[in-house]
Amino acid sequence: MENVIFSPKSIAIVGASQDSEKIASVILKNLLEGGYNGKVFPINPKYEEIQGRQSYPDIISVKESIDLVCIAIPYQFVDTIIDQCIKKKVKSVVIITAGFKETGDEGKALELKIAEKLQIAGIRLLGPNCLGFINNKAKINLSFARQNPGDGNIAFVSQSGAFCTAILDMACESGIGFSHIISLGNKADIHENELMLDLLFDKDVKALALYLEEFADGKEFIALAQKAKKPILLIAPGSSEKAKQAISSHTGSLASSYDTIVAAVKKGNIIMADNSEDLFELIMLINQDAIPDGRKIAIITNAGGPGILATDAVEKENLELTEIGEKTKQKLLKVLPRESNIKDPIDLLGDAKSDRYELAMETVLEEKDVDSIFAILTPQLITDIEGTAQKIVDMSKQTSKPIYACFLGGKDVKAGFRILKHNNQPSFNDIQEGIHLIAKLAKFEENKEKTKVVNCDDYKVRAKHKKEVSEYTNGEEIKILPENLAISLLQEFKIDIPQELVTGSIEEAVDFAAMNFPVAIKATAKDLAHKTDFKGIYLDIRTISEFEEKFVELRENISKITGNPAPEILVQEMIDGKVEFFIGANREGDSKIYEKDGKGFGHLLAIGQGGIYTEVYKDIKHILVPENDEKIKDLFDETKVSMIINGYRGKPVLAKEKILDLITKVEKLLINYPEIISMDINPVMITEKRAVVVDAKFYVKK
Amino acid sequence: MENVIFSPKSIAIVGASQDSEKIASVILKNLLEGGYNGKVFPINPKYEEIQGRQSYPDIISVKESIDLVCIAIPYQFVDTIIDQCIKKKVKSVVIITAGFKETGDEGKALELKIAEKLQIAGIRLLGPNCLGFINNKAKINLSFARQNPGDGNIAFVSQSGAFCTAILDMACESGIGFSHIISLGNKADIHENELMLDLLFDKDVKALALYLEEFADGKEFIALAQKAKKPILLIAPGSSEKAKQAISSHTGSLASSYDTIVAAVKKGNIIMADNSEDLFELIMLINQDAIPDGRKIAIITNAGGPGILATDAVEKENLELTEIGEKTKQKLLKVLPRESNIKDPIDLLGDAKSDRYELAMETVLEEKDVDSIFAILTPQLITDIEGTAQKIVDMSKQTSKPIYACFLGGKDVKAGFRILKHNNQPSFNDIQEGIHLIAKLAKFEENKEKTKVVNCDDYKVRAKHKKEVSEYTNGEEIKILPENLAISLLQEFKIDIPQELVTGSIEEAVDFAAMNFPVAIKATAKDLAHKTDFKGIYLDIRTISEFEEKFVELRENISKITGNPAPEILVQEMIDGKVEFFIGANREGDSKIYEKDGKGFGHLLAIGQGGIYTEVYKDIKHILVPENDEKIKDLFDETKVSMIINGYRGKPVLAKEKILDLITKVEKLLINYPEIISMDINPVMITEKRAVVVDAKFYVKK
Repeated sequence: MENVIFSPKSIAIVGASQDSEKIASVILKNLLEGGYNGKVFPINPKYEEIQGRQSYPDIISVKESIDLVCIAIPYQFVDTIIDQCIKKKVKSVVIITAGFKETGDEGKALELKIAEKLQIAGIRLLGPNCLGFINNKAKINLSFARQNPGDGNIAFVSQSGAFCTAILDMACESGIGFSHIISLGNKADIHENELMLDLLFDKDVKALALYLEEFADGKEFIALAQKAKKPILLIAPGSSEKAKQAISSHTGSLASSYDTIVAAVKKGNIIMADNSEDLFELIMLINQDAIPDGRKIAIITNAGGPGILATDAVEKENLELTEIGEKTKQKLLKVLPRESNIKDPIDLLGDAKSDRYELAMETVLEEKDVDSIFAILTPQLITDIEGTAQKIVDMSKQTSKPIYACFLGGKDVKAGFRILKHNNQPSFNDIQEGIHLIAKLAKFEENKEKTKVVNCDDYKVRAKHKKEVSEYTNGEEIKILPENLAISLLQEFKIDIPQELVTGSIEEAVDFAAMNFPVAIKATAKDLAHKTDFKGIYLDIRTISEFEEKFVELRENISKITGNPAPEILVQEMIDGKVEFFIGANREGDSKIYEKDGKGFGHLLAIGQGGIYTEVYKDIKHILVPENDEKIKDLFDETKVSMIINGYRGKPVLAKEKILDLITKVEKLLINYPEIISMDINPVMITEKRAVVVDAKFYVKK
Repeated sequence: MENVIFSPKSIAIVGASQDSEKIASVILKNLLEGGYNGKVFPINPKYEEIQGRQSYPDIISVKESIDLVCIAIPYQFVDTIIDQCIKKKVKSVVIITAGFKETGDEGKALELKIAEKLQIAGIRLLGPNCLGFINNKAKINLSFARQNPGDGNIAFVSQSGAFCTAILDMACESGIGFSHIISLGNKADIHENELMLDLLFDKDVKALALYLEEFADGKEFIALAQKAKKPILLIAPGSSEKAKQAISSHTGSLASSYDTIVAAVKKGNIIMADNSEDLFELIMLINQDAIPDGRKIAIITNAGGPGILATDAVEKENLELTEIGEKTKQKLLKVLPRESNIKDPIDLLGDAKSDRYELAMETVLEEKDVDSIFAILTPQLITDIEGTAQKIVDMSKQTSKPIYACFLGGKDVKAGFRILKHNNQPSFNDIQEGIHLIAKLAKFEENKEKTKVVNCDDYKVRAKHKKEVSEYTNGEEIKILPENLAISLLQEFKIDIPQELVTGSIEEAVDFAAMNFPVAIKATAKDLAHKTDFKGIYLDIRTISEFEEKFVELRENISKITGNPAPEILVQEMIDGKVEFFIGANREGDSKIYEKDGKGFGHLLAIGQGGIYTEVYKDIKHILVPENDEKIKDLFDETKVSMIINGYRGKPVLAKEKILDLITKVEKLLINYPEIISMDINPVMITEKRAVVVDAKFYVKK
């Protein structure tokens, strides 16, 4: 942990007093009792001494240098203290006090003012509105947490102080320690990305747990996660509209769309926790080195019913039940009683004692296709609960593959859990929850190597239409790009669009049509704009005779309206798509997003079923631009419409490669025209040979 | 509880011995220690006395009458004992012994032999291969369970003995009792339906919890559930293919399709539990009278983050966050500090003590639109954990609306849980799990009145084509009904099918076509069968001239093949459907299913998106035939394709009423032709005015 703020050699605590109930007093107490070996200066003009330490009237009165000032006084007085900090040239400040951005405009202004002052002075700031931090590696507990669970190898960073307290309370109960616990508060200066950089590349930190309501800079967040290759556990609320409103009112910031967060999690190979229990169980498992190498899991049980429930869970969570090979079966039959059900799962029967579990585990571990074992125990009449727990612990010492114990019950199985917990053995008392968590870890491990950083600079070209697009991008308004400019953008990136010709000559038109049947003929945009209630479009023309007839008819229609006897007419090939595809995008962040200091997640690309079914089936997958080809292919294959494109029930295979190519071209287009705040390409007509963009709308904004 | 087997006045235990480890000895011990006040006869020729009771060499030697014989000796000896039971004219038998149907064909034959003997003698049987039963209402513990959690008002019936032991162990830990605990074993005689009848209509039983791997008679099971109006909790494994295989190997029976079970649960308003933890928590909640009247839930919290997570969960689980009215807001503002976040959820802030919780609960309960309160607590610095728990308990006494406490944490919140548990207050330590369970209970309550018994006899008519269909229904083979018979069945139930005419006369054909454009013309089935490589079908004919031309062409094609100069030709209207719909069915049970003694679930109807997207989007809902109109409408509205049919994005509304009508007609068709084992109506073309069955295939089997 490099960051100076978390390893200060001297700390002043503003607001500490002889009233032990005051937050600053609790922080001082926690710091002193935690064994901090730097200098500590309580600051309070009212007292000479606080908790056995000399108290100072203000920061300036401290003669020695101060590395960190912790402020826990009412918000009205914080600004004055900040001025003193700057004068005293302290290195960093932690503001515990609430009453800033989270309370509305006035608080926001005050927070901004303080943050700017500190930035100019080169002083780092944690908070405001936070619980403080605990750095167990340096024996610093600068927080008003009720308790400190002690040192460990997992770091925990939370935007919610209350969430910290809940996790700490769980940790104290379970005897799990943390290397660092950092409450971010309003993130006026230090935010999650800086801490990720500090913590994820710290050799003492095995994993990072995060609770985040909004992201300081999504693009950087993902890049850090991609580089880290260490487990990052994340709780990010906001899947519902109401929750998003609550986040805004609670943090004073706009929440990202949940789709964006889900895509970010996927891109960064982050492990999403569903809730605090989930997060805590995952922390425990990582702490127990219980990440399996893959998804092949063997189930051993002393009861059929629970074995079946586990089998359902394995399928639901996309793990794979190990298929016990014939050789292993024979081996098991030799050592287990004849009646045992040597199948998948392996049922040791209700009278199994610990020896049967031992034999089964030993034999199954010899199988090649086993990444972990899930050993279920129900407390039957002669079940040896403690003995089996001990055998699981012993067996675990002889293998690097995790053995998860799942003991079902309450009173009697407690004795087993005592042994398992004491030996730091991964254990559950709920089948589905256990399998659910194992699946998350297996997926993380599996995707670790697939996760590659894609640099958006590699996608940048000398954009041809920059100037024209810029013209539409000014002010606060969202504008739509005119059709011809939209087409120019598509053409610039060699995106397949329907062939077309604008001509006044019927001979030229016929020649073109003959090459491209079926075709449509339309009045040009200019003429169409003239008046709306004339027939200006003829679709699906398939023969030259029909074409000539309709061409003449349309020319007459236009002439009547415009007075022009020989108007130009648009002839367009019609694409007989077998499937309609959809590509949409929304930008999160401003139009500087792909520049060095741009903040936000960038463009969220949506791909999937097009046409009228787009919103009905919501068969859409999301990609945060840019993404590598392998991942794009995987995501495409996750859409259901890909079933049809990949050749459905004897129907021909459609142009999948062309779609993948189109997606990459669209990514390029967006990165080079980040002015596009929103995009709607629907439909893309998919034939056996082409993926043709028939309609594309681009909306731009700064 | 009416059933004689569960309230015997005298019990013989075959296999009890002086070896206290023997299962029969454990059963004897449990029975005696449980305070059973009937007569008890240990049966074992080796001893004079067992556990202080006189032992008898065999059943016959007992002079007094015996109500129940419990058998726990190796399976080879069971048959002999059964003969003695018959001779002694005992009323009932419980066979604990395993080694029957679950082990294969030999065991199955033995089980059948014993069950038949007993049936003829009029002796009831529980088991074999079971744990026994506990009837706490009559102080009978005739089981080899490790422990008995004591009396309560919830009954528990399980097909898995091990599952019993796990639930009992949980119950002992939590101090929850059960009225009855019955281990069904192989269900050779007594099965779940008989027990449902006994238990669900017993005034001492508030709810029934079930673990079932397969159903003795699905139709009756649903009917009982529909009548009961009491909560039925069900765990039914088998959602995965592998689990289904495991069930077969474990129970020796075929598992129902999971879709069938899900439809049954819906039809019977049964509460499906995901796993043992879930089941147990639901038992606790029902025991605590914590079923809410509806889905409107108010959230009170002392921390923003967890409040947001709860908001997400409420939306995900289809509950509704209570909207706090302006009046209530003003009231809350008067009693709570200014900074409190009086929104949805209500954030009492981190320094909330128990008084704030009290005021908030009191005020919120005055709102009309509140069915329950979810009170979240995180252990912050000055949080009064125990005081808040006590206030929640006190407030609950003043209202019939459930107040759910959700205390997050581990060590410190324990003191709060002690108070909550001691007062039987519904409480959770996980937001999502809590909301998930509350949602299940709210849904049960909401559907209670909607659940009506639909009698399949009301659907029966004098089926016209019974004889023809029967001709195809013989032997073990599945046969497809020929097209003309299929059409006859559709016509019998006045199902809309395309208009058609078979004629040799071009004049007649033109007249028909003119009324029904667009049309198709086809060679008749007889002629088409002749040879496959001639053009025998012309589609989408829209004008008379085109019709005449194609008619002549087709006539010539046919003549060339058949030599018949004036063949008959099929003219068929083509339906320009805006949406393709699908109705399929599978029968579970044999063709006697709708008769009095028919066993099985009957026909599972599948409705949803038709055409090529049927299997891609699996937009299918299931109905167990027959179902009432309201439920069919609800299920239809749950399909996604209903969005389009109900008028999508300005598109016209399609003939929804015609689809609902069609579904009912199909139900009728299936009930009257239960020979249909499988049906595939795809597509049903939906226009603005019609729902037309374009293709229907019926497969029949006995």
